[in-house]
Amino acid sequence: MGKLIVQKFGGSSVANVERLNRVAERINSYVKKRHKVVVVVSAMGDTTDELIELASQINPRASEREMDMLTSTGEIISSSLLAMALHKRGRKAISLTGPQVGIITDTSHAQAKILTIRTERIKDELKKGNVVIIAGFQGVSTDHEITTLGRGGSDLSAVAVACAVGADMCEIFTDVEGIFTADPRIIPQACKIKKITFDEMLELAARGAQVMQTRAVEVAKKFNIPLHVRSSFTKKEGTVIMEKVSYIEEAVVRGVALIENEAKITVCNLPDTPGVAAKIFTELAKRSVNVDMIVQNVSHKKMTDISFTVPKSVLAKALKTSRDLAKKVKAKGVLVDEAVAKVSIVGIGMKSHPGVAARCFAALARNKINIEMISTSEISISCVTRKMQGKKALKVLHKEFNLDKI
Amino acid sequence: MGKLIVQKFGGSSVANVERLNRVAERINSYVKKRHKVVVVVSAMGDTTDELIELASQINPRASEREMDMLTSTGEIISSSLLAMALHKRGRKAISLTGPQVGIITDTSHAQAKILTIRTERIKDELKKGNVVIIAGFQGVSTDHEITTLGRGGSDLSAVAVACAVGADMCEIFTDVEGIFTADPRIIPQACKIKKITFDEMLELAARGAQVMQTRAVEVAKKFNIPLHVRSSFTKKEGTVIMEKVSYIEEAVVRGVALIENEAKITVCNLPDTPGVAAKIFTELAKRSVNVDMIVQNVSHKKMTDISFTVPKSVLAKALKTSRDLAKKVKAKGVLVDEAVAKVSIVGIGMKSHPGVAARCFAALARNKINIEMISTSEISISCVTRKMQGKKALKVLHKEFNLDKI
Repeated sequence: MGKLIVQKFGGSSVANVERLNRVAERINSYVKKRHKVVVVVSAMGDTTDELIELASQINPRASEREMDMLTSTGEIISSSLLAMALHKRGRKAISLTGPQVGIITDTSHAQAKILTIRTERIKDELKKGNVVIIAGFQGVSTDHEITTLGRGGSDLSAVAVACAVGADMCEIFTDVEGIFTADPRIIPQACKIKKITFDEMLELAARGAQVMQTRAVEVAKKFNIPLHVRSSFTKKEGTVIMEKVSYIEEAVVRGVALIENEAKITVCNLPDTPGVAAKIFTELAKRSVNVDMIVQNVSHKKMTDISFTVPKSVLAKALKTSRDLAKKVKAKGVLVDEAVAKVSIVGIGMKSHPGVAARCFAALARNKINIEMISTSEISISCVTRKMQGKKALKVLHKEFNLDKI
Repeated sequence: MGKLIVQKFGGSSVANVERLNRVAERINSYVKKRHKVVVVVSAMGDTTDELIELASQINPRASEREMDMLTSTGEIISSSLLAMALHKRGRKAISLTGPQVGIITDTSHAQAKILTIRTERIKDELKKGNVVIIAGFQGVSTDHEITTLGRGGSDLSAVAVACAVGADMCEIFTDVEGIFTADPRIIPQACKIKKITFDEMLELAARGAQVMQTRAVEVAKKFNIPLHVRSSFTKKEGTVIMEKVSYIEEAVVRGVALIENEAKITVCNLPDTPGVAAKIFTELAKRSVNVDMIVQNVSHKKMTDISFTVPKSVLAKALKTSRDLAKKVKAKGVLVDEAVAKVSIVGIGMKSHPGVAARCFAALARNKINIEMISTSEISISCVTRKMQGKKALKVLHKEFNLDKI
């Protein structure tokens, strides 16, 4: 008896006719082995970006509702073409839009959350012997509008569908071979990780690793569906993301990651009275500014400095909010520093291995890399450095924790 | 109090950003005059053809169901972009897909028939002050599948929506200035017709005039919704198609048309017994071959010839059917002639003016144009000639009936 497998193919995997055909061959090989296959596809190559560019020429502030209408077409195109490619190979297949599947979301356009997935249609089509090809990235809201799930939303579609139908496996086909100990473009010695836990993957993604969409991993974790991230261009095994991994050699650090597109904001000489910090971050949260690291200096003459990092995409908004608030609470001023980088190490082993932080700081110090901010979680440590030292810091830490030898 | 107006913009009218902006300006000028506007758009420029080409690279025999999924995206793109362009101008607007509007069709893909249009959503959005922008060419079938209405289907969408909402007017914006007495590319002296009846327009379209989709005109005729066919590039009045036109000067012939992509098939020496002709045309109809003109010679020694014309697109199918049947009924053979043209004159005035046919034949004869087949309806006369004489015949008839002087 075959398995029920959900496969997701990213934009680069279906970027042109030749690649679509290759994907169809791959799916066909699963069907030949009597597996039931549900496929989720992204838009072909740069289709989504091209549509966004077209929209920006017409209206740089296009409404999210209309942007969802527009961008959701990319995945419909790739899914119907993939169905045709399977028909060509004598396979039964049917493409379905998000609304046709019944991927029901809330009403927040551009970043919709999946509320539920009706599985009747998918199950009906599987029963008829069809490969079910679902347009990723999209759903239909409770008030019947087309919604999209945000960047990388097709990952989320795939994982959510896998959970809904109770798939045996969810494979995420992409243009890389799996999850690496570091970005191989920066560190060529980076190694592919065979197995990694959901928590480690989430932490790596939050710290800059760009392979998987965070929300997709969260959903997989919640429903405990193992994800197999692998290349659509080779048959090689990729990385399995799962709940628990029993490591033969207990690796302390599983991977390192680098973020270079954040900026540091410092509000100087704040009166050090209760509630001032809360005011700043409440105000920022109201304006949807996602603050990352926060550091508050020791109070000095009842005054203090607060520094935090934000993605550069929201820097202008964050800066205005900070300056407005600085005036209100009579702080001395606001400084901004765009020349920072953040390097992180992630690993569940940290829990049981003391001294990882010390080893990390010492390695950076030996290499004359100054640490400007530090933040830690149970399974990760992040350091802010000068931007020009970011890549070097990543290499130092990758080597320090023997990640080139796993 | 403003009017309720349905406007349809064809693919060339929304082919690029600049033209989309121009269309938005035009719609805006109607809204400023307090009209309520429902817009139906085609896909931008060659989008649909490009999608079809892409599909043919993957599967030359793609299923109609998947082709509908694929091609329906073109109109969603143009409608959402147009909504954005109106937002830019401070207008409220909302784009809707065929399924969102509730354009319910039968289940025949690629050539779906509209069964009903739910008007609640359109009326709701109009009440909210929105310009309602509908993706043309598409609907949703009774079994929840995406369907398309066939080539030129956006005309049909517009007319059907106009009927459903009880519009005061339906304007068809296109890349020509209206309906002309002849194709101006062949006859530069052709004049724009100010008003024409539904019947004349249907006859002209059936005889080769390519401005309006026939089914759209049929629906407009059925519900008696006047159509205003006009250019999206000028403010000039175009042609109004309506039920009755009171002509100041009773023009006998309203327009001429030419078809050059048909072929003539002749089945020779058929036994002239009852039912033989019926057999041929029943068999052709079964295979969806739309036969146009039919001529049967006078019987000679209990044998007869039957000639008919078919579009070249179905010639192979028609020929095979004819040859199979010729064998069965022991006819002598089947001839095919691809070098024919069909020229037609159309006008409601023919009903009340005798001698139009004679005048037509005489004019052609004077110009040494041989007529090979003739067919007439109440308001039209068509003649098959040699293909190389088709354009000349068109010019002769255009002049004969003074169509360059209206």
